[in-house]
Amino acid sequence: MGRIICCGLGPGDPNLMTVRAYREVRGAKHVAYFRKRGRPGQARRIVDGLLAEDVCEYPMEYPVTTELPFDSPEYARLLSTFYHEWAERLARLTRAVDIVVLCEGDPYFYGSFMHLHARLEGRVEIEVIAGVPGMTGCWNSVGLPIALGDDVMTVLMGTLPEDELERRARNSDALVIMKTGRNLKKVRRALCAAGRLDEAWLIERGTTSGERVARLKHMDEAECPYFAIVLVHGQGRRMEVIECPSA
Amino acid sequence: MGRIICCGLGPGDPNLMTVRAYREVRGAKHVAYFRKRGRPGQARRIVDGLLAEDVCEYPMEYPVTTELPFDSPEYARLLSTFYHEWAERLARLTRAVDIVVLCEGDPYFYGSFMHLHARLEGRVEIEVIAGVPGMTGCWNSVGLPIALGDDVMTVLMGTLPEDELERRARNSDALVIMKTGRNLKKVRRALCAAGRLDEAWLIERGTTSGERVARLKHMDEAECPYFAIVLVHGQGRRMEVIECPSA
Repeated sequence: MGRIICCGLGPGDPNLMTVRAYREVRGAKHVAYFRKRGRPGQARRIVDGLLAEDVCEYPMEYPVTTELPFDSPEYARLLSTFYHEWAERLARLTRAVDIVVLCEGDPYFYGSFMHLHARLEGRVEIEVIAGVPGMTGCWNSVGLPIALGDDVMTVLMGTLPEDELERRARNSDALVIMKTGRNLKKVRRALCAAGRLDEAWLIERGTTSGERVARLKHMDEAECPYFAIVLVHGQGRRMEVIECPSA
Repeated sequence: MGRIICCGLGPGDPNLMTVRAYREVRGAKHVAYFRKRGRPGQARRIVDGLLAEDVCEYPMEYPVTTELPFDSPEYARLLSTFYHEWAERLARLTRAVDIVVLCEGDPYFYGSFMHLHARLEGRVEIEVIAGVPGMTGCWNSVGLPIALGDDVMTVLMGTLPEDELERRARNSDALVIMKTGRNLKKVRRALCAAGRLDEAWLIERGTTSGERVARLKHMDEAECPYFAIVLVHGQGRRMEVIECPSA
């Protein structure tokens, strides 16, 4: 019996893969990964040039991305069928071989692999390798500590209602806002209302060669991709020791 | 002129170091790291057996840990002097050589290195290598997704006031509570009051050979070390697609 090895690949720079993930990727005979229709796929791009020449690839292509509202029953039905079919296919494959599933970031942190995990748990041996989360790559690209001392950090999705985004932006020291793409206007309004827009950064494709880091207030929202993350840095609650001694 | 290369080493398992950090650690001629007095040091322990034989080591030993209340002026003064002196020493050393500073987890995420970073920025070339944060290692050890869909995740320090811990535990889907050690009784009371104690996990030394994962409600608080993290997993807001299709 084979296993499923889900490799967190980190934020984008292949050198930020863990030693363990790197080893699995290099030795893989069968790799599966999610991608949007007609796209190479974020995870697949990270391992470019690292896979064995004779590797078997299984691109798991989403049946739908933004054509349907994500809270419609039709969207739910299509995605559910998609995850179900791929879970069955991977389960069949593991009767003979190991499958390495490639995942950007960390698999347990808002990762799509969890839809397969929930359907395969208990039926197939699954190993999950932690990765540097995408947000960690993004705050590394800014080059400032995201949180210090007693800071409270909140991770939010840009898909949340505007009033919730505003309230949480007011009540947190540090903020990470994911899934910003088509929600960027709303995210910007919420941060502005909370008095946090001036502190906010927008990071696209953090740690990759296409990385862009900018103050959110200077960004043209028309050109903001889905993969961008908005960060507001904490200032370090109870961090008096950061000051130099007067003596 | 030399540089300072601050390596995030990940949560504890050396195989969860990034490829880039691993390379720097293996090639280092001079390494510095924080540790408590008389202890080997968390970061130093991760690279055991990986350093060159003739490496120069600079253990940066905290002058104080829990002997003084951390909000006392004396504590602040002692730590401030300590960071100042080490920043000056590292600045002098980089006139001749590169210094690799070893940091557990990710340096920009509540990392002590930031006290040096703030004092050295603009004077010395500093490179920071992202690492898998300690919390990511911990939720990997539990083997469940920490957050999914539209979950809101909050990172809190156990040092916060009890009423704030309780309020935030009520208002978040997923919770990460760090610096639990001597605050564990308070953290437990706050989670209980918020109705979240039954869902909480306590993870000690996640991803290391000494790892322990337990339900918080079953834990004996007398034996809880400073390095433990409490997790409450999100359930996945708006995640209808996780269900299998009825068709």
